[in-house]
Amino acid sequence: MTAARRLLPWPRAGGRVERNRQDGANGMSDIGITQHISRQYNAELEDVRNRVLAMGGLVEQQIADAVRALAERDEALARQVVSNDYKVNAMEVAIDEECNRILARRQPAASDLRLVVAVIKTITDLERIGDEAERVARMAAHFGRDSGMHLDDIQVEHLGNRVHAMLHQALDAFARMDAELALEAWRLDTKVDHEYEAIIRQLITFMMQDPRAIPRVLDVMWSARALERIGDRARNICEYVIYLVKGKDVRHTSLEQMEREAAQDGDRVPPVRS
Amino acid sequence: MTAARRLLPWPRAGGRVERNRQDGANGMSDIGITQHISRQYNAELEDVRNRVLAMGGLVEQQIADAVRALAERDEALARQVVSNDYKVNAMEVAIDEECNRILARRQPAASDLRLVVAVIKTITDLERIGDEAERVARMAAHFGRDSGMHLDDIQVEHLGNRVHAMLHQALDAFARMDAELALEAWRLDTKVDHEYEAIIRQLITFMMQDPRAIPRVLDVMWSARALERIGDRARNICEYVIYLVKGKDVRHTSLEQMEREAAQDGDRVPPVRS
Repeated sequence: MTAARRLLPWPRAGGRVERNRQDGANGMSDIGITQHISRQYNAELEDVRNRVLAMGGLVEQQIADAVRALAERDEALARQVVSNDYKVNAMEVAIDEECNRILARRQPAASDLRLVVAVIKTITDLERIGDEAERVARMAAHFGRDSGMHLDDIQVEHLGNRVHAMLHQALDAFARMDAELALEAWRLDTKVDHEYEAIIRQLITFMMQDPRAIPRVLDVMWSARALERIGDRARNICEYVIYLVKGKDVRHTSLEQMEREAAQDGDRVPPVRS
Repeated sequence: MTAARRLLPWPRAGGRVERNRQDGANGMSDIGITQHISRQYNAELEDVRNRVLAMGGLVEQQIADAVRALAERDEALARQVVSNDYKVNAMEVAIDEECNRILARRQPAASDLRLVVAVIKTITDLERIGDEAERVARMAAHFGRDSGMHLDDIQVEHLGNRVHAMLHQALDAFARMDAELALEAWRLDTKVDHEYEAIIRQLITFMMQDPRAIPRVLDVMWSARALERIGDRARNICEYVIYLVKGKDVRHTSLEQMEREAAQDGDRVPPVRS
């Protein structure tokens, strides 16, 4: 799904313009200016969200390419992922600057402020996910073309597809400001962890059976580790979405508590979908 | 060094009160209120910085204890580190809330805004450093008391002390708003990486020589990896300090470029030390 298709309108825009219209009795030119500033501000927030989703799309692609490069022993693709990481970094810096500019010039409050803060945190995690994808690609480039497909690679590919899907869902939840979808994506991390642990156990057995393969198996192990970390970071993004929608910080809470929070109506934010 | 001893006064406070005094001709009661608000605001910013340093102190202690637990096979200490991690998490959530409150109520600008944003990012890294320390402690608890001291443990202990010192220096740079000290700490990460890579190479040799030791050696490897990640995150904190003092984002730039930035006078911030 592209960033453009994914994006639904940011719900608070309508509310603000409405309020400005109700103030209309005070003088036409003031309303005009207020509406103009409000429109610009809304456009800026919308732009930031679009950019986060575009960055997320690029990072998703980097994961998919890195995993494919690993699975298909595609050294050229692996090198392409490594050389593309600078784009992810540049996007992070640009969005971060835009957020700082909005904080300084617009002095956002309430849900707008939460959006900007959530964006600052989300892009940090996206950038680090990009780094993990680069790590997987470096391992893939390291393997080269000479070795064939192994059982452990197939499992790592499966894990890669799983964390890719998890990040995709987390970004969908961000686009739609959907706390329940975020919670659903958050829950996927348990499966990621179990799959990762099973891979590690199997790789240890491989190494003990064939010590000459240890360096190669370790590369597979580092790749699995990088993918597991991507799952952790996608989970962070889910937590920011829940915070954004519900106005409550759900980090370091139990799954049960988080489920309660996600199910309750947020008391400090406007309704998200009409 | 304790957080209290480390902290030097936040330099922008004086400047603001001075400006308010110069506006004195406009009316005494206004000045009184403005000064009062200004003092409260300064106290809030000061409090946030103090809390970051207190959190940093706790995280430093967690690293030191985790490394000692690993080196001395101290299972009780290891379990203490694991059970203390919730304190780090609680501090992060509390400081994060305080930052959001300041952003919403005080609408900070310029260097104040950069401080708040840098704090939000710093505490995220500190919290994740706490997680890495917890990981090391879990490995230490896993080893138990039965196995003796090995060469690889000594090296890991050395790496642990190195990243501990690096984080300490990064937090000192944060306390003093000292970009040059931050750059110095940033540079230490290269040594951390080299030491880490040497440990990994040696551990691979161990595993190939004695495949039965693989599970144990892997635990040492994960510990080394966690410590290397702490170095990465301490480096992030250094970058936030340079951004804070110089007003320039130095992430993803070369060391040479960063040295140039750190050497130049910041053009958007007040001088840091009188």
